[in-house]
Amino acid sequence: MTMDLAPNDFIDARALSGRALAAELVATTHDRLTRVFTALDGCGAFQEEQWTRPGGGGGVSRLLVNGDVFEKAGINRSVVEGTLPAEAAARLGGRTPAHGPAMFFAAGVSLVVHPRNPHVPTLHLNVRYFEIADENGEVQDAWVGGGTDLTPTYPHESDARHFHRAVRTVCDAHHDSFYPRFKQWCDEYFVNRHRGGEARGVGGIFFDHLRLHDDAADAGLAARFAFVRDVALSPESAYVPIVERRRLQGYGDAERALQLARRGRYVEFNLLHDRGTLFGLQTGARIESVLMSLPPLAAWSNSAKPDDALGDAGVASGPSIADRLHSMLAPRDWAADGD
Amino acid sequence: MTMDLAPNDFIDARALSGRALAAELVATTHDRLTRVFTALDGCGAFQEEQWTRPGGGGGVSRLLVNGDVFEKAGINRSVVEGTLPAEAAARLGGRTPAHGPAMFFAAGVSLVVHPRNPHVPTLHLNVRYFEIADENGEVQDAWVGGGTDLTPTYPHESDARHFHRAVRTVCDAHHDSFYPRFKQWCDEYFVNRHRGGEARGVGGIFFDHLRLHDDAADAGLAARFAFVRDVALSPESAYVPIVERRRLQGYGDAERALQLARRGRYVEFNLLHDRGTLFGLQTGARIESVLMSLPPLAAWSNSAKPDDALGDAGVASGPSIADRLHSMLAPRDWAADGD
Repeated sequence: MTMDLAPNDFIDARALSGRALAAELVATTHDRLTRVFTALDGCGAFQEEQWTRPGGGGGVSRLLVNGDVFEKAGINRSVVEGTLPAEAAARLGGRTPAHGPAMFFAAGVSLVVHPRNPHVPTLHLNVRYFEIADENGEVQDAWVGGGTDLTPTYPHESDARHFHRAVRTVCDAHHDSFYPRFKQWCDEYFVNRHRGGEARGVGGIFFDHLRLHDDAADAGLAARFAFVRDVALSPESAYVPIVERRRLQGYGDAERALQLARRGRYVEFNLLHDRGTLFGLQTGARIESVLMSLPPLAAWSNSAKPDDALGDAGVASGPSIADRLHSMLAPRDWAADGD
Repeated sequence: MTMDLAPNDFIDARALSGRALAAELVATTHDRLTRVFTALDGCGAFQEEQWTRPGGGGGVSRLLVNGDVFEKAGINRSVVEGTLPAEAAARLGGRTPAHGPAMFFAAGVSLVVHPRNPHVPTLHLNVRYFEIADENGEVQDAWVGGGTDLTPTYPHESDARHFHRAVRTVCDAHHDSFYPRFKQWCDEYFVNRHRGGEARGVGGIFFDHLRLHDDAADAGLAARFAFVRDVALSPESAYVPIVERRRLQGYGDAERALQLARRGRYVEFNLLHDRGTLFGLQTGARIESVLMSLPPLAAWSNSAKPDDALGDAGVASGPSIADRLHSMLAPRDWAADGD
């Protein structure tokens, strides 16, 4: 499945401020991702909700449930601004004003899809633009961030290789350093530390505080936004082909049980560790949008075997699948040349 | 169902130090709760796991899955000690040493049961004894804490009344102030603040930092431990009768969907807000024991209706059940005289 980018889908960066350009990028990629995933599902339709945030701004949430491919798919955008709570500022990591309250502006697109078929991996994607300003609106700091990562519930190594190679291609078009840096960042970020360092999935890329002029790669705002836009649209090359080849693969109760247990881990990461979720909760975004990443159904078996957490899902074919999956969760150079 | 307390079930408090007495109380109530809930289920059996904590101490976890009444029931005890991490100390709230590292000792029993039948409410119970000492073992602070609370997934007001009255009776035997103080504390603690202040359930009691000699009620260690023991055994009067009258009540897909959505809220509270969960994760307790409170299966529908979160579970009989449940979640004087 391919989709051409219309010439006027994106406005010339030079004509717009960071805020306006970010809002435009977010709206445009949100619409395009919606079209891509609607076509990919082939059956379900996204229901849209618009919301406003009392402190300033709002968003558009789109949710598809009980589709053909996707048990649940959420694609949200938001453009919010207001006073930055102190506890959120401390975690955010940007430069805040020396005096007076910190104001923030944030525009982002997020996507999380939970496929029905356990052979189809879960995908997460987010891109965002942040600004911190003082009370007079003087910008103190501005950056882009984002990433995309894959969470298999069944061990298909070729899917991890495909995904990483496609994401590397997207990154390499912008700067040689991006993929290796952001791949490692992702491996370090999506970790259930309370589970002895178990990764959420097979990674991808994650980056934050990518400022307009802080490395050799830079050509300013337009270049940063071009990179972020390509990351936002990366599912077309990185994920769609995986869905196409897995969606009709057969499965039974054992694979479903494994999937539900894996989703339990996904819930744990998102509620215990994810900074984006916490930021959303702290800054008063719409709760249903902040938590759209949660799966439609998840299970916890709390096995009596503490170190065999993946094998406790009642998988009949047993340790080999659990072991293969566990071994896939250790960070690996998936994009390396080879089979 | 009743069960007599054997005279030698509890050792005379005066003969033992706080630590030894706490360990004894925890082991004894753990065994007794196991017998009570095994009998109550009538079919399933608890599987036991013993674990040790690298930094000192350990515990005994008992888990019953796929029973007749309980889809999952966990009853754990632990006695742990070691160096108190700074971030845990900050949240714990006790007096820490002026100089040098803080050492801690904690002994507790926890119970969480997730019934299969949506008409049977979820029960949570915990009692604990805490000590903070300096590096020479000099005790800086010591207290008991705990509580028990009820989380219905279906709106039966008479169950909430029964539970609160039984818990009040337990409290009143020790001090008139306990029930009103600890009921209010519970209402303030078990709240999903990120859901606009929605309560986790209909409450019960919650208390912490109940020191040996800090109010008029006190007769020292023995009195504190007698109260905590009675709280630990309160399910026999407060919960067992509810299970007996609800366990055979009929239900269908709509009630099950409502139950799974309610369990999603339970997961959110425990991972986002619960201090006990966080303390366990921060101090290196066994993960499966810390997270035994999580339900076997939970759902998130992320309804398009942000303010009708209970009505989005596909309940065929609709708003009236969701509305009744929602209205039950607002704190109320359930123990008041009346029907």
